[in-house]
Amino acid sequence: MSGTKNKAVVLVSGGLDSATVLALATQDFETHALSFDYGQKHRSELVAAARVAKSMGAASHQSFNIDLRQFGGSALTDDSIAVPTMPTTGIPVTYVPARNTVFLSLALGLAETLAAQDLFIGVNAVDYSGYPDCRPEFIAAFENLANLATKIGIEGDKIRVHTPLISLTKAEIIGQGQRLGVDYAQTVSCYQATDEGAACRVCDSCRIRAQGFQDAGVDDPTLYVQ
Amino acid sequence: MSGTKNKAVVLVSGGLDSATVLALATQDFETHALSFDYGQKHRSELVAAARVAKSMGAASHQSFNIDLRQFGGSALTDDSIAVPTMPTTGIPVTYVPARNTVFLSLALGLAETLAAQDLFIGVNAVDYSGYPDCRPEFIAAFENLANLATKIGIEGDKIRVHTPLISLTKAEIIGQGQRLGVDYAQTVSCYQATDEGAACRVCDSCRIRAQGFQDAGVDDPTLYVQ
Repeated sequence: MSGTKNKAVVLVSGGLDSATVLALATQDFETHALSFDYGQKHRSELVAAARVAKSMGAASHQSFNIDLRQFGGSALTDDSIAVPTMPTTGIPVTYVPARNTVFLSLALGLAETLAAQDLFIGVNAVDYSGYPDCRPEFIAAFENLANLATKIGIEGDKIRVHTPLISLTKAEIIGQGQRLGVDYAQTVSCYQATDEGAACRVCDSCRIRAQGFQDAGVDDPTLYVQ
Repeated sequence: MSGTKNKAVVLVSGGLDSATVLALATQDFETHALSFDYGQKHRSELVAAARVAKSMGAASHQSFNIDLRQFGGSALTDDSIAVPTMPTTGIPVTYVPARNTVFLSLALGLAETLAAQDLFIGVNAVDYSGYPDCRPEFIAAFENLANLATKIGIEGDKIRVHTPLISLTKAEIIGQGQRLGVDYAQTVSCYQATDEGAACRVCDSCRIRAQGFQDAGVDDPTLYVQ
């Protein structure tokens, strides 16, 4: 416990968005960072998550093991599906089936264990154009579920799912982070980063991130492979 | 694929209820059984789940590894909390934080991978008196979420969460199973069954099960430790 702040569980992937969310959550809450080791190809994001949680003063950081390769079906977890390096239309192949539903459910379990009522997740406007589980109506439905699913919810306290980035562009997110002193050099967004965290520059995530720094007028601190 | 039946994902724990659900689902669907190795003390239920899935003709059976001991907080997963052997009031300590939310989320992920639209879960009237995530309003909220969370849901097809036992007593469930030829000797319900599947007779789950056989007027085929 750190004084009078309430606890919040913050999903921290190691990427740019969730680092910004953690900075925002830390203003008002004692933060408990939660990452997922789900069999992702880009393992260095987990190293980045630990680095980000520590530097932002999270009260705890847990990397939860859940191997989503047991299902396959996504370019992020299935070795037989390549990470695309050109823009695509529709729901991208990097979509992991039910991933945010699973991650929020586990965050809810951790919240219940910690007696926390607040969850933070860094879904945003750029993501929700392609991934169904990044849309505001999905988040609202999850919050409704959470209040029916748990001891906390049925005992009268309210569980809240905070999505402070949901209506921001990538450039606006970067602007928020700059204001709060987030060191984006610590973050890894690339879907196929090297073990050292060097980014490919060509996957969807790299392209969106680089464009964000450009639009924000901020020097891109990303380590690239070339 | 087995002809013209649609696929359904059926949560199969190895216990009495989910064996009955699988028998019911098999009437109308090509069933894909999903169990969870979540660090439960009663490991023999996983052996029972495989036995049940095979004998009921499930098209596939997967035991998904997700170690919920990473959170603790329940008598079913936390070695520091004993399984109670007397009736308790309120939400029991055997409640696993957000367990059904997590399990249904993973079932949804498997359904999406299989292009299945139907999920079956054996929540029932006896359970929902104590566990928040066994209530009809929880299931309805999850179904709503599922249709916002997934490719299938947003592309217009409807995901359905079937709870055929939800309004049945344990005796009525056993009656259904008898009618469908379920061999309850294959099932393990005990929260602290031995490795051989022998039941303790004294935990909540054993007491409710034994009473169910008695109320149904059916000989109890359970293997007990004494």
